[in-house]
Amino acid sequence: MAENIPEGYRDLFAVPALGHLATLMPDGSPQVTPVWVDFDGTFILVNSAKGRQKDRNMRARPQVGIDITDPANPYRYLAARGRVTEITEDGADAHIDKLAKKYLGVDKYPSRVPGEVRCMYKILPEHVHAQGGNAGEGS
Amino acid sequence: MAENIPEGYRDLFAVPALGHLATLMPDGSPQVTPVWVDFDGTFILVNSAKGRQKDRNMRARPQVGIDITDPANPYRYLAARGRVTEITEDGADAHIDKLAKKYLGVDKYPSRVPGEVRCMYKILPEHVHAQGGNAGEGS
Repeated sequence: MAENIPEGYRDLFAVPALGHLATLMPDGSPQVTPVWVDFDGTFILVNSAKGRQKDRNMRARPQVGIDITDPANPYRYLAARGRVTEITEDGADAHIDKLAKKYLGVDKYPSRVPGEVRCMYKILPEHVHAQGGNAGEGS
Repeated sequence: MAENIPEGYRDLFAVPALGHLATLMPDGSPQVTPVWVDFDGTFILVNSAKGRQKDRNMRARPQVGIDITDPANPYRYLAARGRVTEITEDGADAHIDKLAKKYLGVDKYPSRVPGEVRCMYKILPEHVHAQGGNAGEGS
């Protein structure tokens, strides 16, 4: 059952706020890494390269969690749990360039590794928690 | 098997950098939330209140993941996977006040809820990844 990202928190995708993405390792334990994030109105979109740990995790175990804190107020944040419903290479190169523009202000993603295959992951939010922003709230 | 936090990244615990903690829901899916973090030389310490989702998750399923990005350079970060090896109420009130000092600059945690029982969670890092800090690296 999908749950929408509240309108009042969609601004977090318009600013260069990192997401923190949890995926599941083969033993079921969680791994968290910072990621660039995007939102298409329904799906949270992240981008990685084929063969990385989080890529392998999401292909095998689609359940993920992610949080995004407001750079202007770290006590205002969005946290979602959901599932990766699609992994695609189509448009993934253009998408990492779009993210590089948002996060770095450059037209081309500068850290490409020769031979790497970029992938875009579509995360359907199923449970969304939005909070903020009293300092210390939630601790 | 414990793995130490590299000396060169321990400064992340000296500044008010949020951690992003992944715990496991009853269905095994990951939940991520921002948390205040501390380090005692061996364990990563977090603090929450009894009965919260992450408290219930860590009591039932001790595997966690956490990342901490450098507020001065978000592409420099520490990510650890490990296990909660102890949950204690002893010293947890003083510990949340210590964290309030570090994160908010105040002597007393200002968001206490009457009746809540504070707990301190000791996380033993088992796999540590430290990276940084070229912009875009890891995406």
